[in-house]
Amino acid sequence: MEQVNYRLADIASRFGGRVLGDADTLVNQVATLESAKKGHITFLASGKYRAQLAATHAGAIILGEADSAATQIPRIVCENPYAYFARVSALLNPMQQAVPGIHPSAVIGEGAQLDHSVQVAAHVVIGAGASIGAGSVIMEGCSIGEGVRIGADARLYPRVVVYHDCVLGNRLIAHSGVVIGADGFGIAMDEGRWLKIPQIGRVVIGDDVEIGANTTIDRGALDDTVIGDGVKLDNQIQVAHNVHIGAHTAIAGCVGIAGSTTIGRYCRIGGSAGILGHLQIADHVEISSFTLIGKSIREAGSYTGTFPFSKNGEWRKNASHLRHLDELAGKIRILQQEIEALRRKD
Amino acid sequence: MEQVNYRLADIASRFGGRVLGDADTLVNQVATLESAKKGHITFLASGKYRAQLAATHAGAIILGEADSAATQIPRIVCENPYAYFARVSALLNPMQQAVPGIHPSAVIGEGAQLDHSVQVAAHVVIGAGASIGAGSVIMEGCSIGEGVRIGADARLYPRVVVYHDCVLGNRLIAHSGVVIGADGFGIAMDEGRWLKIPQIGRVVIGDDVEIGANTTIDRGALDDTVIGDGVKLDNQIQVAHNVHIGAHTAIAGCVGIAGSTTIGRYCRIGGSAGILGHLQIADHVEISSFTLIGKSIREAGSYTGTFPFSKNGEWRKNASHLRHLDELAGKIRILQQEIEALRRKD
Amino acid sequence: MEQVNYRLADIASRFGGRVLGDADTLVNQVATLESAKKGHITFLASGKYRAQLAATHAGAIILGEADSAATQIPRIVCENPYAYFARVSALLNPMQQAVPGIHPSAVIGEGAQLDHSVQVAAHVVIGAGASIGAGSVIMEGCSIGEGVRIGADARLYPRVVVYHDCVLGNRLIAHSGVVIGADGFGIAMDEGRWLKIPQIGRVVIGDDVEIGANTTIDRGALDDTVIGDGVKLDNQIQVAHNVHIGAHTAIAGCVGIAGSTTIGRYCRIGGSAGILGHLQIADHVEISSFTLIGKSIREAGSYTGTFPFSKNGEWRKNASHLRHLDELAGKIRILQQEIEALRRKD
Repeated sequence: MEQVNYRLADIASRFGGRVLGDADTLVNQVATLESAKKGHITFLASGKYRAQLAATHAGAIILGEADSAATQIPRIVCENPYAYFARVSALLNPMQQAVPGIHPSAVIGEGAQLDHSVQVAAHVVIGAGASIGAGSVIMEGCSIGEGVRIGADARLYPRVVVYHDCVLGNRLIAHSGVVIGADGFGIAMDEGRWLKIPQIGRVVIGDDVEIGANTTIDRGALDDTVIGDGVKLDNQIQVAHNVHIGAHTAIAGCVGIAGSTTIGRYCRIGGSAGILGHLQIADHVEISSFTLIGKSIREAGSYTGTFPFSKNGEWRKNASHLRHLDELAGKIRILQQEIEALRRKD
Repeated sequence: MEQVNYRLADIASRFGGRVLGDADTLVNQVATLESAKKGHITFLASGKYRAQLAATHAGAIILGEADSAATQIPRIVCENPYAYFARVSALLNPMQQAVPGIHPSAVIGEGAQLDHSVQVAAHVVIGAGASIGAGSVIMEGCSIGEGVRIGADARLYPRVVVYHDCVLGNRLIAHSGVVIGADGFGIAMDEGRWLKIPQIGRVVIGDDVEIGANTTIDRGALDDTVIGDGVKLDNQIQVAHNVHIGAHTAIAGCVGIAGSTTIGRYCRIGGSAGILGHLQIADHVEISSFTLIGKSIREAGSYTGTFPFSKNGEWRKNASHLRHLDELAGKIRILQQEIEALRRKD
Repeated sequence: MEQVNYRLADIASRFGGRVLGDADTLVNQVATLESAKKGHITFLASGKYRAQLAATHAGAIILGEADSAATQIPRIVCENPYAYFARVSALLNPMQQAVPGIHPSAVIGEGAQLDHSVQVAAHVVIGAGASIGAGSVIMEGCSIGEGVRIGADARLYPRVVVYHDCVLGNRLIAHSGVVIGADGFGIAMDEGRWLKIPQIGRVVIGDDVEIGANTTIDRGALDDTVIGDGVKLDNQIQVAHNVHIGAHTAIAGCVGIAGSTTIGRYCRIGGSAGILGHLQIADHVEISSFTLIGKSIREAGSYTGTFPFSKNGEWRKNASHLRHLDELAGKIRILQQEIEALRRKD
């Protein structure tokens, strides 16, 4: 794909900000401070990287007011350089548009309603009664179940599976290997045998959601599993049945969320964290990577529960006491009493 | 799919239990206490939800003897309401039957033996010499390796992969993205290079097993990896080579089980737990979510090893001591000696 | 596949080592000490299993100098029995060779350059301008993006997805469900909405790499994600954008590595470990299973940070003190002062 050139002045007139230096400077790609060359625009989002400014070969830089005089390279000064950079990068690297048409190897079920602008790639299967909105792209090997509804301008990368009757919003991006709407883990023990509980709920996903590779979102047991607008899920996340994730929450890779838990809006959950089932997590909660949340969180804030690593020998020495903490605490109580007794005697 | 109506009397004559109230009440779907409407049957499995009884609009309720008088809604009284509910739900929501036939886009290897009642969907590949039993459904895009044997009434959802020579039991349910029989992680270091150890064992899976989306079960290195009858695996579980999982064990999502470990029968393993390799886990062991099992467990019971979360600031304060627990314990020993010395002087 | 017979003498002339006992002994398969029969060759890599020597029915054994007299069974004595065994097993169980040809259901993009010896199975899609080297096998349902370059003698098992422009080395083995080059998790918050940062880097993978089932490796945000030569990745690993993994590092299942972290050469990382973003891990670092690495590691060695499990009741008793460790440490300080005061009085 050939890159289009933009003048800094053009960019500023689209996205705001103030140009310092030559406003006719042309840029056609984004890059890091370190690897940027002529024709590239980079950004400085944090003072931490200011030392790299002197060495950069970038054609232009996006930065904040505080750094506006830190370089003489042509630059755009704005309030939120990282978000501004995101917009510029999206301008220079637009998502590929749908190329309308259905590959002859695709299998389309009876009564499926595909907007004429939809692109369906090779080896796709679309179930009976499914519907797909304008501008959506269903890449090769995707499997869309019966009765599924997909909004406009969605992009399903190769080999995404959506089980029957799920509802996917506009502008959804689902990466390869995503499975939406598989059965939740519902079983009942009966005289030494597990009985399967049919999972008759759906997965309902709002607008502007992105789902990373190999992430799984199970359908509800009776009611639905619900993913709010603007939710961003990284790779290899497991969302169990009947979970609700509030709008604009972002979850990093490998997180597991157990059944029937409700997560608020604007939460941020670190990688490999876990959240047990039937909990309530408030809005604006941050959970650290590798932290297990075992109780509901009613208050916004940052929560952590991780074990600090050390050299194996040191860890061994220290960890051996963890199984005796209660004893240790008991010894301290006794020491306190004994000292109290000694003092009284004094 | 149209829902069929059943009278409570019909249900009780199938599954037992005692009808209280109008035995001609018709139900055609299950629902939660909260969302149930006329025509829906719900259940009360735990006293915890008794308060919701008053507000429910359900047409009928399944409950235990202790709660039989807690409502006047038509109801079925039984011993294990949750298991009873599972049976009723399976009656009202039967698994889709196989529609016999092979889609023209499927590729069937030489000598493969498919019962005439088998359903093979689009873009499936079945290797030479594979066999598939009566009533099984192989959904779109599945890949069944050479020599694989699949029992009767199995259902492989779209995009399941089974490597060559694996053996899958009757009534297996494997959800999308499951990979059965990929090579185990067998490598030997030799003069600065890893050599691959060919993985020549198989995966052998018993009857009535369910495997969640994107779960992986590796083939054995030399002998087989074995999954017992009635085992239920949730999503995104990793089962390494030569693991044995005993019958009727249930494992929640994101668990990792390292090579050559043997897990007993009727175990329950919580989400994101981990079990190291070459261990023995007894029957009827429960392992909490997020717990690492680093030694064999010889005795039934419930085992845990998780770090309680707290607000990030508190965690920081407390966790800093974990690297000094041994020192702390040492200080306590010294205090004990000093107090002993002071006492003797007294 | 029929197994070929080899004399011990033939094997030793290929791979070195010293034959003791009948050098004409024929073997055609490898097996464990326990399950080996006539015609099988097994190995003894650790003294731990010496007791099993007496009972084995193996036709031949590979073992070290120290054990050379521990049995009378025909044997090959060598320096590194496990690596020797790997070579013998690879001889007896050769990788299936490519069967050149392109299945008629495969879809090959314009300008794609496939060596004439390449095997492309059913329902594969290969994007425009991609190139695939001699002897490579692309199994059914794989999706190879535009401009992807794959080296020689690579094997992609069914349903592997490689996004556009990624570069894969010679002899790559990628198991089913692997996703290479999906977008990294790059988002910027802007007035209550997440903006997507286009991910324009690639994934670049060296030679002799193996990637386990359902592992995901994200493409770089601006620069590339890089996997060095000889790296071995187990199943269900998540490698985030801009991670660099040094040559010959081996990583067990379910590990998550956050963005922009650099891991050295010859590291070994245990299952379900996690490494936060923007860290540096030195060469020859070993990280235990289930350990979170939250800071850079500058020094080779073995690092651990796990919580020892115990019976649930004991855990509960001990873990309750973790939220009060700082208090506990404070109490000890006070006790020390009080004792000091008592002593001074004495």
